[in-house]
Amino acid sequence: MMKKIPVLLMGCGGVGRYLLQHIVSCRSLHAKMGVRLRVVGVSDSKSLVVPIDVLKEELNDEYLSEVCRVKSTGSPLTTLGGLGGYRVVNDPESRSETKALEELLGKSTGLAVVDCSASMETIELLLKAVDLGCCVVLANKKPLTSTMEHYDKLVLHLRRIRHESTVGAGLPVIASLNRIISSGDPVHRIVGSLSGTLGYVMSELEDGKPLSQVVQAAKTLGYTEPDPRDDLSGMDVARKALILARLLGKRLIMDSIKIESLYPEAMGPGLMSVEDFLQNGIVKLDENIEGRVKRASSNGCVLRYVCVIEGSSVQVGIREVPKDSPLGRLRGSDNIVEIYSRCYEKQPLVIQGAGAGNDTTAAGVLADIIDLQDLFP
Amino acid sequence: MMKKIPVLLMGCGGVGRYLLQHIVSCRSLHAKMGVRLRVVGVSDSKSLVVPIDVLKEELNDEYLSEVCRVKSTGSPLTTLGGLGGYRVVNDPESRSETKALEELLGKSTGLAVVDCSASMETIELLLKAVDLGCCVVLANKKPLTSTMEHYDKLVLHLRRIRHESTVGAGLPVIASLNRIISSGDPVHRIVGSLSGTLGYVMSELEDGKPLSQVVQAAKTLGYTEPDPRDDLSGMDVARKALILARLLGKRLIMDSIKIESLYPEAMGPGLMSVEDFLQNGIVKLDENIEGRVKRASSNGCVLRYVCVIEGSSVQVGIREVPKDSPLGRLRGSDNIVEIYSRCYEKQPLVIQGAGAGNDTTAAGVLADIIDLQDLFP
Repeated sequence: MMKKIPVLLMGCGGVGRYLLQHIVSCRSLHAKMGVRLRVVGVSDSKSLVVPIDVLKEELNDEYLSEVCRVKSTGSPLTTLGGLGGYRVVNDPESRSETKALEELLGKSTGLAVVDCSASMETIELLLKAVDLGCCVVLANKKPLTSTMEHYDKLVLHLRRIRHESTVGAGLPVIASLNRIISSGDPVHRIVGSLSGTLGYVMSELEDGKPLSQVVQAAKTLGYTEPDPRDDLSGMDVARKALILARLLGKRLIMDSIKIESLYPEAMGPGLMSVEDFLQNGIVKLDENIEGRVKRASSNGCVLRYVCVIEGSSVQVGIREVPKDSPLGRLRGSDNIVEIYSRCYEKQPLVIQGAGAGNDTTAAGVLADIIDLQDLFP
Repeated sequence: MMKKIPVLLMGCGGVGRYLLQHIVSCRSLHAKMGVRLRVVGVSDSKSLVVPIDVLKEELNDEYLSEVCRVKSTGSPLTTLGGLGGYRVVNDPESRSETKALEELLGKSTGLAVVDCSASMETIELLLKAVDLGCCVVLANKKPLTSTMEHYDKLVLHLRRIRHESTVGAGLPVIASLNRIISSGDPVHRIVGSLSGTLGYVMSELEDGKPLSQVVQAAKTLGYTEPDPRDDLSGMDVARKALILARLLGKRLIMDSIKIESLYPEAMGPGLMSVEDFLQNGIVKLDENIEGRVKRASSNGCVLRYVCVIEGSSVQVGIREVPKDSPLGRLRGSDNIVEIYSRCYEKQPLVIQGAGAGNDTTAAGVLADIIDLQDLFP
């Protein structure tokens, strides 16, 4: 008997687009596993595409490929034609239509609401989905790093929410932590290098290159956000750290995390343009960082931009770590997480590998969806 | 609403005993998660203890602690009194009673049959459990490394079998591989150091110590089996490699694995006593290994006892690996697994940590049981 999992995807740019491609290319694999993903809706920030009869119909693979093609050109879903039995619903009706879809399927066949956007605007639809007993899968970090009230509501049905790809892309960090937690093994400490960009920057600094040059190279390689300060601020790492800390039961908010930004406030996005920062701002930071790299080296250490979760504290910033530790040996853009617990007391459980990229992130989302199959009729 | 998972435990020596302790000590944690494990039967190779009315009763925590106490002294379950509403059923009736228990619960409330033995004798009861739709959780490697016929029957209901602790103890190797598989990310190659004992031996050899001395020290530290040849033969690593290979869909049997034993046949258990091997046999192997260590070192490499799974081949034995690779940097008794796939192509996904020990192994089994909760009413 084939399990059917109806999927509603919010956010079909980068990660979401790869997810749709993976869903289509895994059809025969999933059939062998006895599962079929029925994509019953896809939305971007402006529009929702749905079959006219969502209970009977789904968006077929040809149409999903067309969605991917349109999104890969950077166009909005609005440009898609209605085609055969499908409707394109535009803003503002798209939100109420999405809610109606959740209500209809949440109560009948079950529904997996998948959020691959990077926006807080999905929160209302996610909370509604939880209320209705739908399953929720997130690659989007923002809903999980919002207020504790939002968080508590989102994780109300612990088994119905998955969010592996919010930390370390497809790396099995959340799944592994959940296993450790459910086995009653108390986690004492987590140390992680959770930004591919900052991992690359830190390991390049070791070789004596100036920060300004390394960041420029990272930008050229496509490793950074369009404004590299989005990486250098440490906010992205802090979000991931908060997600891990909350998973461990710590009731913290973003404001309680001590974050070390790699640039001073005076060089912030409100006060300096990207161009100005890259041409004139960042060079002023080279000397200080160079000194820190040298001091670390004289201690047998290297600098890493890490998060440290321990007790009730979460800290995010540059740390000296021994050259010879798993963290110190990390090179390039890999992520690494070290988990210390009763079972992994002296030597941590280490999970390491590519922690970014649309393909890998989407693979993590897909594994999350498949892992929900037992909750569907 | 509290989910109830009835558990039948086969094998309550080392790992099984720790599992019972973990189950008892996690009561309030699991209650918060909405789950309750009802232990409805515990067996060793000779006896089964069950409540008189398994549908209504379970073995209470006081009795489970008594089971742990008795087993920790090395005594058989037979020595336990029947106490209140419990029965102790001895061999040969214990097997038919176990089967009756599986039938009764498998069809009504569902049942998780947990095998923490290290024996092939449980296979009949496991296959019966699968037939009845029970869930199966294994720490026991032998059933999964038996014939393909046995294997196919055991994994018939993919979602109802878990066996994380058969490879790397509690390390999330199987869970991670299952995620990679279900996301359609093809695994090209797995390289692993999956024996804590051989990991320790190999890293000690690096320092120039003779094999005989290292093995003797490992035995004294309690790192080896009573007969260290059980570790040195590589059979245990081969079993783990076969389990990983079969998970990837490779239809292989133990005989198709090329295994390099660290001692020659003439020093095998049938031909030489343990004492003779340790006093007179193993020293004859020192020179050869010392030469290999030196040759590796001159290539910038160290020796590791690894499994390599690639294409249709599984190989188990000593390999030279670069000093500077995750495998080469491995020290002590940690396990490590490197997984290469489309998403982890140049740099592997690495999972590393303690891969042995009753506590850690039992934690992996417990996480497996909890992860089955959605299959119970």
